[in-house]
Amino acid sequence: MLVTDLATPALVVDGPVLERNLATMAEALPGARCRPHVKAHKCTALARRQVEAGHHAFTCATPREVAGMAAAGMGTDLLLANEVVDAERLGRLAALDARVTVAVDSDATVDASARAGLRECLIDVNVGLPRCGCTADDAGRLADRARAAGLTVRGVMGYEGHVVGLADRAERVRQTAECMELLVRAHDAVGGEVVSAGGTGTYDINTWATEIQAGSYALMDNAYGELDVPFGRALTVVATVISVNRRDGFAVADCGLKSLGMDHGNPTIDGALVWFCSDEHVTFSPDPDASDASGSALPAVGDRVHVRPAHVDPTIAYHERLHVADGEHVVDTWPVDLRGW
Amino acid sequence: MLVTDLATPALVVDGPVLERNLATMAEALPGARCRPHVKAHKCTALARRQVEAGHHAFTCATPREVAGMAAAGMGTDLLLANEVVDAERLGRLAALDARVTVAVDSDATVDASARAGLRECLIDVNVGLPRCGCTADDAGRLADRARAAGLTVRGVMGYEGHVVGLADRAERVRQTAECMELLVRAHDAVGGEVVSAGGTGTYDINTWATEIQAGSYALMDNAYGELDVPFGRALTVVATVISVNRRDGFAVADCGLKSLGMDHGNPTIDGALVWFCSDEHVTFSPDPDASDASGSALPAVGDRVHVRPAHVDPTIAYHERLHVADGEHVVDTWPVDLRGW
Repeated sequence: MLVTDLATPALVVDGPVLERNLATMAEALPGARCRPHVKAHKCTALARRQVEAGHHAFTCATPREVAGMAAAGMGTDLLLANEVVDAERLGRLAALDARVTVAVDSDATVDASARAGLRECLIDVNVGLPRCGCTADDAGRLADRARAAGLTVRGVMGYEGHVVGLADRAERVRQTAECMELLVRAHDAVGGEVVSAGGTGTYDINTWATEIQAGSYALMDNAYGELDVPFGRALTVVATVISVNRRDGFAVADCGLKSLGMDHGNPTIDGALVWFCSDEHVTFSPDPDASDASGSALPAVGDRVHVRPAHVDPTIAYHERLHVADGEHVVDTWPVDLRGW
Repeated sequence: MLVTDLATPALVVDGPVLERNLATMAEALPGARCRPHVKAHKCTALARRQVEAGHHAFTCATPREVAGMAAAGMGTDLLLANEVVDAERLGRLAALDARVTVAVDSDATVDASARAGLRECLIDVNVGLPRCGCTADDAGRLADRARAAGLTVRGVMGYEGHVVGLADRAERVRQTAECMELLVRAHDAVGGEVVSAGGTGTYDINTWATEIQAGSYALMDNAYGELDVPFGRALTVVATVISVNRRDGFAVADCGLKSLGMDHGNPTIDGALVWFCSDEHVTFSPDPDASDASGSALPAVGDRVHVRPAHVDPTIAYHERLHVADGEHVVDTWPVDLRGW
């Protein structure tokens, strides 16, 4: 099957670029040094490629991601790097045939996890991003409470999410050090072997963490693509041109707000200017400044265009499957089987 | 079951508000005067409520929406108000046990529809929104081509999508008239009984159209909620507070970029200020100016919050089901069964 035969909109992964990204990360952070985050791709088939690249421990954002990874036989070491207080879901996680570690950052989350029969946790520490995590000062007390409740505390985690996307590398280095000073201090109070942190933007900067929770590196996106990291953009949404307006010089393809994560803004199309997206449409015009001559003419109805999402994670969450392409050939189709919660 | 028992994030519809919205529209535009757009809710159970309110003709944005409506027994008069050139999908539409009318705006879409065995079409006319639609001047020629190809041309459609959201009613009236002048001119050249146009923002303004393609009126959202239309916001995403940061005065709930359409910006929470959303989180703080006293204190871990999406359509497309609530009671659960393409 060819990429041009796919019903659109279709998520297409550039297979060779994906393989290079996986190999680059596996060389930089081999085995347990990288704990790939499955939230970025929500796809057990892609996670299996990460296993084949040498990683065996994974990060998840939702109970369903944990359960799906366990069901797919990749439950060696699953970290739910997020707080959950839903007793029913926690109970299901505890019953999985898998090693499951949960993040906790409060008395309530410690108690809920212990009550549900979970066995292991990390103390989640706020290192500056206004999101989950206890204060570094409270980490030791929480660890004591967790241990008293019967949980094994494997260590700490703390995500410098406000730093991973900073364009200036020197600033990224400086702020990562500040964040990790807090996490190391918390770790001193908590104990355990694990210091879990980091992301694609700090994978080679964060040397304090024992493991890096990188997810975006596998597929990348426009937001991350602007950073000085050696990973290529592997994901596009392939769309079909369904309308061309020659009078006003624009075209419309069948890919819109329901097939693209929009929180980082509009997608891009190589050689074109994207005007806006509607529910099922993207309107664009040729970019007169494009160096690629193909961009200077309007396409025809039926032509395919590759739309590059600004943010991969919420883009993939809209789709049922990922097609893996080698050039123009579709070589594999993978279900996006970790969607939902 | 209570709303507080739902696993989160959960889409919750305020049943009485939905019923009022449906009744208000059915009174203003009874029966065939409204052709509800299912793209807004992607839910055949909700469409059935629209049938019970007196409407029997529906608007769809994707082939899957058309097929799903036909399979659910609501195929009396389905308009695919969008261009499709995929021969396989068009063939499946032609084979449905339903009356299917497709939008065409070019030689290519006319020819693809005729080849696939579809029987009826509307000429889609560009009335100012930079998206699909032929020029008003070309509409007559296209209708001739469609008839020559064996299609019955039922009339014209043209969506004033750039007008429906204008806050100033006088301006909305003025620009709708401009748009419809083009559509009426095209209709004169095309013939047929149907002039299909309009949306929730122009449902009572667009008197040129024989039928209004309103979708948002049933559930509404923050963007539409700012207009002077008599429909109430019926949809929220219920989320659970999973982390509270007392030092910095914010809380985090489990509803984020993968459960909210973000193209119109951040969601809102009554009585709170929303800081930002991440993939699975919304960070917010109490609004000191909130009149509701409940908004002035930080919530506790485990509390539920109702998150109001900025844009309903791409929000619903992330979810598997809609829960209908009457007060605190969940009275029904409807599958979002028209997702995908």
